[in-house]
Amino acid sequence: GANDRTTRVVHRALIALVALSVLSVVLESVPQYRVYRRMFHNVELVAVACFTIEYLLRLWSAPEHTPYSDRSPWGARLAFVTSWSAIIDLLTILPLYLSFFVSADLGVMVMFRLLRFFKLARYSVGIRTLVAVMEAERKALVATAILLLGAVLFSATAIHIAEQDAQPETFGSIPSAMWWAIVTITTVGYGDVTPVTLAGRLIASVTMVTGYVMLGLPVGIVATAFAEEIHRQEFVVTWS
Amino acid sequence: GANDRTTRVVHRALIALVALSVLSVVLESVPQYRVYRRMFHNVELVAVACFTIEYLLRLWSAPEHTPYSDRSPWGARLAFVTSWSAIIDLLTILPLYLSFFVSADLGVMVMFRLLRFFKLARYSVGIRTLVAVMEAERKALVATAILLLGAVLFSATAIHIAEQDAQPETFGSIPSAMWWAIVTITTVGYGDVTPVTLAGRLIASVTMVTGYVMLGLPVGIVATAFAEEIHRQEFVVTWS
Amino acid sequence: GANDRTTRVVHRALIALVALSVLSVVLESVPQYRVYRRMFHNVELVAVACFTIEYLLRLWSAPEHTPYSDRSPWGARLAFVTSWSAIIDLLTILPLYLSFFVSADLGVMVMFRLLRFFKLARYSVGIRTLVAVMEAERKALVATAILLLGAVLFSATAIHIAEQDAQPETFGSIPSAMWWAIVTITTVGYGDVTPVTLAGRLIASVTMVTGYVMLGLPVGIVATAFAEEIHRQEFVVTWS
Amino acid sequence: GANDRTTRVVHRALIALVALSVLSVVLESVPQYRVYRRMFHNVELVAVACFTIEYLLRLWSAPEHTPYSDRSPWGARLAFVTSWSAIIDLLTILPLYLSFFVSADLGVMVMFRLLRFFKLARYSVGIRTLVAVMEAERKALVATAILLLGAVLFSATAIHIAEQDAQPETFGSIPSAMWWAIVTITTVGYGDVTPVTLAGRLIASVTMVTGYVMLGLPVGIVATAFAEEIHRQEFVVTWS
Repeated sequence: GANDRTTRVVHRALIALVALSVLSVVLESVPQYRVYRRMFHNVELVAVACFTIEYLLRLWSAPEHTPYSDRSPWGARLAFVTSWSAIIDLLTILPLYLSFFVSADLGVMVMFRLLRFFKLARYSVGIRTLVAVMEAERKALVATAILLLGAVLFSATAIHIAEQDAQPETFGSIPSAMWWAIVTITTVGYGDVTPVTLAGRLIASVTMVTGYVMLGLPVGIVATAFAEEIHRQEFVVTWS
Repeated sequence: GANDRTTRVVHRALIALVALSVLSVVLESVPQYRVYRRMFHNVELVAVACFTIEYLLRLWSAPEHTPYSDRSPWGARLAFVTSWSAIIDLLTILPLYLSFFVSADLGVMVMFRLLRFFKLARYSVGIRTLVAVMEAERKALVATAILLLGAVLFSATAIHIAEQDAQPETFGSIPSAMWWAIVTITTVGYGDVTPVTLAGRLIASVTMVTGYVMLGLPVGIVATAFAEEIHRQEFVVTWS
Repeated sequence: GANDRTTRVVHRALIALVALSVLSVVLESVPQYRVYRRMFHNVELVAVACFTIEYLLRLWSAPEHTPYSDRSPWGARLAFVTSWSAIIDLLTILPLYLSFFVSADLGVMVMFRLLRFFKLARYSVGIRTLVAVMEAERKALVATAILLLGAVLFSATAIHIAEQDAQPETFGSIPSAMWWAIVTITTVGYGDVTPVTLAGRLIASVTMVTGYVMLGLPVGIVATAFAEEIHRQEFVVTWS
Repeated sequence: GANDRTTRVVHRALIALVALSVLSVVLESVPQYRVYRRMFHNVELVAVACFTIEYLLRLWSAPEHTPYSDRSPWGARLAFVTSWSAIIDLLTILPLYLSFFVSADLGVMVMFRLLRFFKLARYSVGIRTLVAVMEAERKALVATAILLLGAVLFSATAIHIAEQDAQPETFGSIPSAMWWAIVTITTVGYGDVTPVTLAGRLIASVTMVTGYVMLGLPVGIVATAFAEEIHRQEFVVTWS
């Protein structure tokens, strides 16, 4: 009905505003565009105004929404304020309000403002599914990252021992060799640092094959989770 | 029978013509081969003549073909003309006809002529299956691309903050840092731009591992869709 | 029994001989090892002698082996001689015999001698399974390669148009731009050729994401085939 | 109860000690941190003391633990001492004790001390699962590595033949061409060595596509094993 159409229009307007405001944050950082500073600031003012209204409306109507509908009105609002989604929303509007009081360090503020990008996930089933898959396999992915770190440690130590005499400035300590090891094991391979000795190249070969083979872990984890999520959704669709 | 054999011969001739004409487009761009210009032009003339005949025959016989067989003859032809497949076919022959009237910008024209390559999909079950799989998961793949863009944005902003003083010419703005971020997160790793500070390398490490782990999303999506497509085809084969 | 033990010993000896002879081919190419020339030649003589005896014994006993046991003795031997496995075996011993008559072009000969490596597949269930999986999905993998070629063509043409003025020596023609495109789409990313214009970098970004996403095709194909092969083997083990 | 809480606290303390001691090994290698030498040595002393106590306690209580509970007390202890887990534990504490007697080669000792990292696997279900998956598919992964080696050999030989005249210092022998081949086939692509001739670039293109497609093998193997492991665990959880 008319209500549905209104929701759709509001959603699309918010998506456009998120896109515009993220674009503005990105372009603001370009030195040549300093001259458009005032325009970027205006976009920010409009965006923060809208997101603030959205936040307040969501806060006010929290008791009517599903996850909190069994609580008291103020209990629902408190639960909303402490939810991840609301905290992120707050962080994305905070930098502007803070800038009225303190001349803030722009660096981290920019990161906060970019968090707006994740508002998109709220309006897309596809992104929500992917995020849900990654989150469901959080533990397995962290375990993969730890295994990867272990492989990086061993590989960095081995190449440090093999190459420290030949290239002391890049392989002179384990931490600096770890830069090479992570670039290699993720198969990125910048080539800014490469082994030159025979032993170093043998170690590098083993590291590359390890990275190539271990890629099966994250892919296998996500693929399995994704297949199950799809089957679960089909099951829901079929039976309800 | 004889009809089948004729179809097969015509298909093979068209495949050969597509290959020859694409090869001619590619070689035409080589400065040393300018001397063969006339030959390339003749290949183009023959190819466009054949593809025009093919287009007209398909247009004429549209009412006899499955997707349009329940329509009126001219309704079927209209439906054919507005189908994706026919639009692409038209685009691949248009540049030559346009060149008779206007001295066209060659750049985009070359892209149009190369669209012929996708005619191959019409004659190969394998390619059609793969394209169908990619198309069926269009939404999930776009969602993956948006998530990837979000990761690129954050990673570019973080490295811009960390490296802007050390390397102002390459990390001096978020858009220029995005070049590094996308090269890194897709694990391509040209190495034309690399971080040199400790903070930059830590951010780069997180970015690389993110790209390595997120590879599970497209692969999981396509692999799941592919497995289901295969099972569906086997089901069809078994039950019909 | 004793027979089994003999078979195992012979297999291991042949594996060792394959490894030794491949190693000898590899080391023979090192200019510094020219002094060991005579030794490499002796290894080759012994290896070819053994592989010739193996070939003749397999030829002689062909009628007793499963795939040919229903044929006449000489029919079985003819079928053996024209099998892929026997042709490869013959190619690996031919270079030495040819060198007695003609002073052959060493290049291709070295490739033939290296084919010995594939004898290993005969003695390992694991390698045989993997090769069977790749072979079963031959068509789908070729279709993937053709799709990849199409993506390379478009990407190369687009970057050629965008970068030909900025970098005429590397992007001056479609064939030379194809080198960049294939290095990028397979996510190898040497970095010997990279775009420098804004349009070029946008096209490169699309190419990288295409390569990152299309990786799902070969991986999905092989993973699906592998899972089915495993289930088929388990089925056979369970029911027989 | 209190016992469980104690176990948890001890586990966490051991995890912290592993992390601290690995960090100390890593930082010890940095030339600028030589001044903190004594501190690193003290961390090592504490860590080895704790790990020695852990080893002795585990040795003593071996007869009470599941895998050995059906053996005689001393048989259980002998089985424990010769288990992989105990050998690794011993190797991680040995370097310090050895250093009291001999002035050891620090290189390999550092590797032994880093083995502590694998103690983490003992306390994390996730890591244990991943290691179990990789170990279960050991044979298939080794077969993949051998196939990869075969592809590297052929690709290195072909490029050696094509590029030896153009770049004798990098492609002058098969072993040195193998460095390029492995960097390329694993899609790492440092770019320190790249082909420049047309034939070399064609061979490189085939090599890159081979690496891109063969990535399906390790990923397919690990993904299949992972999916089965997950289903097995769910089966156990559902039925027990």
